[in-house]
Amino acid sequence: MNAKRAPAAKAPTAGDYLIASKSCELMNLQYFLQMGRLVQCISNLVHSLQCERGASNVFLGSGGERFANERESMVAESDRLLADFYQALTEIHRELTAHPVSSRLLNQLASALHGLDGLTELRRCVLARKVTAASATEDYSSLIHNLIAVVFEAADTAVDPTIAGLLVAMVHLMNGKEFCGQERAVGSAGFSSGRFDRALSERMMHLIEAQERCFEVFTSFADDDSLALWEKLRQNPRESDIEKLRQRGTAIGRFKDLDPALADEWFRLMTERMDELKTVEDSVEGCFHARCTERFADARNSLAHQETLIASLDARDAREPASRPLLVLCDSGGEQPGGDAWESDGVGQQFGRSIFDLVQEQTRRLQQMTDELQSAREALEDRKTQEKAVLLLMEHRKISNDEAHRVLRKLAMDQGRKLPEVARALVSMADVLK
Amino acid sequence: MNAKRAPAAKAPTAGDYLIASKSCELMNLQYFLQMGRLVQCISNLVHSLQCERGASNVFLGSGGERFANERESMVAESDRLLADFYQALTEIHRELTAHPVSSRLLNQLASALHGLDGLTELRRCVLARKVTAASATEDYSSLIHNLIAVVFEAADTAVDPTIAGLLVAMVHLMNGKEFCGQERAVGSAGFSSGRFDRALSERMMHLIEAQERCFEVFTSFADDDSLALWEKLRQNPRESDIEKLRQRGTAIGRFKDLDPALADEWFRLMTERMDELKTVEDSVEGCFHARCTERFADARNSLAHQETLIASLDARDAREPASRPLLVLCDSGGEQPGGDAWESDGVGQQFGRSIFDLVQEQTRRLQQMTDELQSAREALEDRKTQEKAVLLLMEHRKISNDEAHRVLRKLAMDQGRKLPEVARALVSMADVLK
Repeated sequence: MNAKRAPAAKAPTAGDYLIASKSCELMNLQYFLQMGRLVQCISNLVHSLQCERGASNVFLGSGGERFANERESMVAESDRLLADFYQALTEIHRELTAHPVSSRLLNQLASALHGLDGLTELRRCVLARKVTAASATEDYSSLIHNLIAVVFEAADTAVDPTIAGLLVAMVHLMNGKEFCGQERAVGSAGFSSGRFDRALSERMMHLIEAQERCFEVFTSFADDDSLALWEKLRQNPRESDIEKLRQRGTAIGRFKDLDPALADEWFRLMTERMDELKTVEDSVEGCFHARCTERFADARNSLAHQETLIASLDARDAREPASRPLLVLCDSGGEQPGGDAWESDGVGQQFGRSIFDLVQEQTRRLQQMTDELQSAREALEDRKTQEKAVLLLMEHRKISNDEAHRVLRKLAMDQGRKLPEVARALVSMADVLK
Repeated sequence: MNAKRAPAAKAPTAGDYLIASKSCELMNLQYFLQMGRLVQCISNLVHSLQCERGASNVFLGSGGERFANERESMVAESDRLLADFYQALTEIHRELTAHPVSSRLLNQLASALHGLDGLTELRRCVLARKVTAASATEDYSSLIHNLIAVVFEAADTAVDPTIAGLLVAMVHLMNGKEFCGQERAVGSAGFSSGRFDRALSERMMHLIEAQERCFEVFTSFADDDSLALWEKLRQNPRESDIEKLRQRGTAIGRFKDLDPALADEWFRLMTERMDELKTVEDSVEGCFHARCTERFADARNSLAHQETLIASLDARDAREPASRPLLVLCDSGGEQPGGDAWESDGVGQQFGRSIFDLVQEQTRRLQQMTDELQSAREALEDRKTQEKAVLLLMEHRKISNDEAHRVLRKLAMDQGRKLPEVARALVSMADVLK
């Protein structure tokens, strides 16, 4: 037996790995406490960039006549929040990069930062009116898209279901709000020009549907407080005013000449809507932070508890060799076995059986977490699959992003299937299509 | 702009996070280089425990008359490999536990170690013949199961598709070989007692089918060299001899009295088979190690390359400010813009556009890896789902594990669907069934 016992003595034990398993969870929660700070900064920065984008649109659309000051104050605000974002990154950089958690997340951060490097130049072009409203909107939108994608990757990295779920709610709310912002831009273009052509109307319809789909996912993962705020938003009379204007925007041709004054009305309503959406975002973010802190405290206590427990087991085994119970491993446990074998194994057994319960408990916990995590993972998976399916259609049929989305929706409608299903089916056919 | 520029200076840049993303991959590969060592030790230890289990069965079945010496030498061999295993654990412990990679993996290691703590006592009971062959087999099997499960969790943790695929092949080969070992035990019991009752025959059939399913998955993920060895194994005339004996074992009642001499024949053939399966395992393990080393070297070079590249970009920007190209961001890039804005942004842009390509390249690579990883993930997912479905049926119908497997297979056959499909459907009905 010595061949085994000798190294076993200094080798890590079951208890060591049980502790390691708990510490691993703790490290991961710590990571997400840091991520939470980043998510908050991103949420604020995105909102401010959306305002800046809106103001820049009006500024450029009016040939520099309007919103010059608004734009400037919004640029200043974005810079303030940008500073916060860089500050947060600087402070959590080590924590974010010290562990092999997610290459995708880190690379997405690189994309986002790269985009922000171009912001100053973009603003210069806007101010000098060297860029069209459409092209400025596109540049701002890609900055924002890259920032939201960081939150998506964070959600994809979470292993704690409660935390992952809230990040899924968060990223879908942010995406929905962004579609709302793009709808504001499209509407402004249509109303201020006095009419919507087919392309503009269809883009608007697409953005409305895309928004709704995001908000659906949000509602299925959000916490109660945030859901209450969301309901309040839906009840707001403003929403029906927006609905009326949407109908005009999407009813191609029917309203030939729209009163350009509607543009201001539309911009005001949609801006109000986005500001209220931001308050919902803040609520989700607050709940996320609270959960992380809570789960982190739980995990730390549980770890400490187990460490004490295991230590006490060692102590007891050392203190009261007499108290070692009869082994149950043998079929006939009747007679009291003796000799060195017993002396050397009793501890292992006694200790083993106690450790066993702790390990089993941890196994059950981890399994339950994995099960609960599934729905969050699926929501993210569906999103990825739909994006893949859209790209596939764009390449294959040489159509625009909007058209691709329309084709997908039509397929789903015609086949009476859910959108993710149809997307999956399409992606699974990728090789055939190519 | 100062509000932004000031913190931006010391804040991590896109380049920093691109490097971080690459380092993250490197850390992960390093982790799997260590895991590889562990997988090798586990594969060896499992094989030796399977031999020990087989010998213990004959020893107990013959009332201690036979295999006394064989058993002892196998115990000694297991102890030697156990020592290697503990040695490896001791050496890689820090690396395994320093990063939040997988709580499940670490907890599974705890289970495996706990099981091994009981080995000495189990052997004592076997030697003293205080335990039945059946109960000893069960105890050895659970030790082995817990060791193989460690490899499963490792496979579930891998993010590099080539590495994950080989671990999937490895774990299914190990599982198949273990089913083969259990079949050897069941067959020995039947042949040595001279007959197979229904229960024994059905267990044998179940183990044969379970083996085949594992080997199917193995063949779809294994490397070419291992596949060649696998084909060689299949061609071995021994396989048809085994087939003949299997037919006798599974043809309930038809062969009333079997010549007990067949027991030795059976044990010899199956042992030979398992030894050859082990050589295939060694080949997969060797390929796994080679891939890890190779991928690690690639990743390290790529990281070094990027670091140099980014450094040179910085240097060039600092050295030749004149060489900064015209910005393409503006619609009308015709006139040469001047002033501080240009001075301060040119760098960002020049640097930005170069970094951009590197970040895009990394994005594509990571996406491709994720896509390629999917099939491996699905194979593991299928396995988990089937285990869940079996547990579900056992609880719900109060039937044995074998029966549950039979029910699943019958469902699949009747519906002409794949087993994983049926299992998924069943698990998705869990709440209804409960």
